[in-house]
Amino acid sequence: MITEFAEIDVKPGMEPQFIVGVEASLPVFARAPGCHGVELHHSIEHPQHFVLLVKWESVADHMEKFQKSPDFQIWRGNVGACFAGAPKVWHSKTVVD
Amino acid sequence: MITEFAEIDVKPGMEPQFIVGVEASLPVFARAPGCHGVELHHSIEHPQHFVLLVKWESVADHMEKFQKSPDFQIWRGNVGACFAGAPKVWHSKTVVD
Repeated sequence: MITEFAEIDVKPGMEPQFIVGVEASLPVFARAPGCHGVELHHSIEHPQHFVLLVKWESVADHMEKFQKSPDFQIWRGNVGACFAGAPKVWHSKTVVD
Repeated sequence: MITEFAEIDVKPGMEPQFIVGVEASLPVFARAPGCHGVELHHSIEHPQHFVLLVKWESVADHMEKFQKSPDFQIWRGNVGACFAGAPKVWHSKTVVD
């Protein structure tokens, strides 16, 4: 299992709309092959900043299967208008837990 | 409950020593008032990059009680020599889970 970190800054004032868009996208992640859960973290110090943490079986499940699927366009349709810039996306292995 | 994000870059080659230092520090976090768990994430794409995720009851439990406690010095003693720069530390509320 790996974790996707998607670091997202939203346009000022669009925080509530972004959260609604993520909530509306939960079925998209729930049906994505290899996806095992989503958490949205909202920065306390910098309210325009969010991190979406997504558990995937592999990087390929995210970068190959999901990002090239029609559901990725649904996800981006739900939230993309809120983005202040391109999200910074990377992946981790949990080494201490 | 809030999550501390500590974004840490380590000096090249010091990744194993840093992981050992975090493991050695688990008792420090286990006994910290208001602390409810630690995860260390290691970037797949950028091996010098880590994110420590720490669950706290409040920001004050982290920033006031823990950072001003003797145990914070033990934590920094275990890992500080590995840091390539000052960690970037911030806090989140989980808004979708």
